Amino acid sequence: MNSKFIVIEGLEGAGKTTAIQTIVDTLKQYGISDLIFTREPGGTPLAEKLRQLIKQGVEGELLTDKAEVLMLYAARVQLVENIIKPALSKGTWVVGDRHDLSSQAYQGGGRGIDQNLMASLRKAALGDFYPDLTIYLDLPPEVGLQRARERGELDRIEKESLDFFNRTREKYLELVAENDSIRKVDATQSLEKVQDDIRHTLLNWLKEQETQA
Amino acid sequence: MNSKFIVIEGLEGAGKTTAIQTIVDTLKQYGISDLIFTREPGGTPLAEKLRQLIKQGVEGELLTDKAEVLMLYAARVQLVENIIKPALSKGTWVVGDRHDLSSQAYQGGGRGIDQNLMASLRKAALGDFYPDLTIYLDLPPEVGLQRARERGELDRIEKESLDFFNRTREKYLELVAENDSIRKVDATQSLEKVQDDIRHTLLNWLKEQETQA
Repeated sequence: MNSKFIVIEGLEGAGKTTAIQTIVDTLKQYGISDLIFTREPGGTPLAEKLRQLIKQGVEGELLTDKAEVLMLYAARVQLVENIIKPALSKGTWVVGDRHDLSSQAYQGGGRGIDQNLMASLRKAALGDFYPDLTIYLDLPPEVGLQRARERGELDRIEKESLDFFNRTREKYLELVAENDSIRKVDATQSLEKVQDDIRHTLLNWLKEQETQA
Repeated sequence: MNSKFIVIEGLEGAGKTTAIQTIVDTLKQYGISDLIFTREPGGTPLAEKLRQLIKQGVEGELLTDKAEVLMLYAARVQLVENIIKPALSKGTWVVGDRHDLSSQAYQGGGRGIDQNLMASLRKAALGDFYPDLTIYLDLPPEVGLQRARERGELDRIEKESLDFFNRTREKYLELVAENDSIRKVDATQSLEKVQDDIRHTLLNWLKEQETQA
């Protein structure tokens, strides 16, 4: 099987970090050990600088929604062109903590940026590059934010209103329904059950790939 | 007359700094003294941070053409929304050292980024916001680069090849021919003649505005 780009998505506190470990363990059991991680926004020196500007903003200056999404795409282009594509082309699997779906959900859904604008920006920046599989951890924002709050100080985006996160979740669910390459896992379940679901989702998908290949 | 946004454009070493002084002097003689300057990329704290990343890059990492243009537009949106539009709406004139035409010429022309992509990016970022008048200082890149070199160390973009600057100039000239709001001044002439031409171009344009109003 060719190397693949697998992404984990979800709201703050959905359990992405644990999920990534489950994905890696499952891939290794499946015999895939040549893999790297990425996180977005970030993952290259320049993209990490942009991440800091996006997450913290600049004191005393309003960060406009459009500048935010342009910076997110600048960081994503750097990561895709300099890290993800080169890795995939030499046979390395890539496991991503967030990717483009986050921008579609947070900026398109949460911030309400026009859908045509989001689509043309995506196309301009990434062309026809998409993850092979995205696992979306679904849970109500109240639950996730409570978990995130317990972890420590909130950043600029994590301080958004509950309405913002409800719109973000709605957009995630809308995109899950439209795309077969995005699979949903119920993240309100017990940790063990969530891990089981991720494992099964990934194994089923890997088998589908073998069959199609 | 409503306040206007006037931009000076041209290759490195075309004489933009002197030209801005001429524009300001001419506006003052015309009775317009409520004005601010902007420079691009930059002009807000966040945009200046982006300027630094664009001009210097990050050591050891290739800055892709697409990330460069996305960062340029992020900086431009911050400047337009936070500085230029608020100034214009309270009656302050704005004199800009470069604006969107630079991206069209350098990234669209010089780097050869697809024209449709440039157009959709411009529309996504700026909508229908345009300068009222742009004065383009035209000269062959060899002449401008020699002047820029004499000023000191060259940045990442100034180190580009002569071909790059020739393509940039061609795109500038193409856009001048298409847009009545862009007026060309021959920057190979003596400093005095260039200043005269800028003054006359600006005064003629101001009179046109009075007639139209």
